[in-house]
Amino acid sequence: MTTASHDPRPIGVFDSGIGGLTAVRELFRVLPGEGVIYFGDTARLPYGSKSSETVTRFSLEIARFLVKQDVKCIVVACNTSSSVALETLERRLDIPVVGVIEPGAEAALAASRHGRIGVIGTYGTVGSGAYTQAIQRHRPDATVIAHACPLFVPLVEEGLLDHAATRTIAEEYLAELKAGGLESLILGCTHYPLLAPLIGSIMGPQVTLVDPGAEAARATARLLEQRGQLSAGPQPEHRFFLSDQPRHFHRIARAFLGRDLPAVRLVDQTDLPWFERAHA
Amino acid sequence: MTTASHDPRPIGVFDSGIGGLTAVRELFRVLPGEGVIYFGDTARLPYGSKSSETVTRFSLEIARFLVKQDVKCIVVACNTSSSVALETLERRLDIPVVGVIEPGAEAALAASRHGRIGVIGTYGTVGSGAYTQAIQRHRPDATVIAHACPLFVPLVEEGLLDHAATRTIAEEYLAELKAGGLESLILGCTHYPLLAPLIGSIMGPQVTLVDPGAEAARATARLLEQRGQLSAGPQPEHRFFLSDQPRHFHRIARAFLGRDLPAVRLVDQTDLPWFERAHA
Repeated sequence: MTTASHDPRPIGVFDSGIGGLTAVRELFRVLPGEGVIYFGDTARLPYGSKSSETVTRFSLEIARFLVKQDVKCIVVACNTSSSVALETLERRLDIPVVGVIEPGAEAALAASRHGRIGVIGTYGTVGSGAYTQAIQRHRPDATVIAHACPLFVPLVEEGLLDHAATRTIAEEYLAELKAGGLESLILGCTHYPLLAPLIGSIMGPQVTLVDPGAEAARATARLLEQRGQLSAGPQPEHRFFLSDQPRHFHRIARAFLGRDLPAVRLVDQTDLPWFERAHA
Repeated sequence: MTTASHDPRPIGVFDSGIGGLTAVRELFRVLPGEGVIYFGDTARLPYGSKSSETVTRFSLEIARFLVKQDVKCIVVACNTSSSVALETLERRLDIPVVGVIEPGAEAALAASRHGRIGVIGTYGTVGSGAYTQAIQRHRPDATVIAHACPLFVPLVEEGLLDHAATRTIAEEYLAELKAGGLESLILGCTHYPLLAPLIGSIMGPQVTLVDPGAEAARATARLLEQRGQLSAGPQPEHRFFLSDQPRHFHRIARAFLGRDLPAVRLVDQTDLPWFERAHA
């Protein structure tokens, strides 16, 4: 590699909250030389039950904030946002945008010899049909069973990863998927990988669980390598922004990131357009 | 009553979402001649897990929207907002503001001969101590046991009012309260009255359940009567605004309001300061 093919700018990552830190964790692992700027929209989460229009507007606002921080690409770690806003983001931005849908779909296909794939996610993600479309674009004869699991996010946020109530709800959500003879199951929401032990125990060992956030991190590594945009810096700097500091923040962040989070900056009201202008 | 003591302007009501419709339902019952303008911040709900600063900022934005609609008073149906933002709203607005805390505390006291009162609510409401302070201001020797029940809102939104998982979670949340020999229990979140049958069956018939939204509606009626501001209009007009149209909206709205909701207007992006300015 020559220095001409390096790009020292950081990678931007955003999510509706802090679940996207699972993607950051994988970015740290596969791209240890890259700086990451993370934005979590904790003041307006969750996105999964809100309309496509609202999620798209919020996503564009955050993407513009990250562009102002001079990122070289944006990873949309939020499945709902990737499902409904990716096309708009790609059209409006001049830098590459990596969503979780395509990498997640490809990984699920690679683990499904007969193309029998399940998808779980929020109402927004499942209702959009984005995963089903991405899978069937590659393999039109694939069988996709999708089911929304709206209570998984609040249960994870409460730390009830192995609680009787969580198991009761998970068994109901997964009943149809379990009966479907699946080979792989896409955990189509940033919170769901924390429930992987429970989901795996219900689905059985023959079903491969796919974490689209981790797949998106690896897709980002391939993209930057192809474009000659990897960083040469041995000491990358990371910055974390949130629009609100939620309760239990450090416990939840630690669960997602796998280690303590460095200093977090609450976005100043002048950093985001809707704050900036509302108080001008 | 003379016409001079009438005020035809509508009553403003707001909530983080549509749970505040339970207060509207009671307003319709006790003040059938009054028009109501409702605002539900469905694009940014829930408030209960967010910081006081963020909830106060959102509440002020909405209150200003309602003032622009020329309401004669504002009912803060959201318990979280009433807990953390009421003082700021009262200071910044020129019209009366009725929260749910004081009416709820007074009703709980009236039902508790020995002053043994429980409070359940969101993290924001319970963490603020607002109910405990309001109760002990009236009766310093009262015993108040408060417990946050963060999963009740998503369980209600999913319609799991009588589900095994909801009962399991409710029994855990209420264990300490049940052991406390309570006389009354404040259902300190707009969603909780829909769980009243379950909560009542766990707590037992000796515990009076208090719905602060209904109490706030009755407090509003007393306030307007005292101020000579009741409306004389026999055909009041109601208007409902939301910042996002959530999924399952009509089912949930019907559960709260007890009847089908009239036409709802999604707030235009020019109606609220943070939209208006962000897209100017």
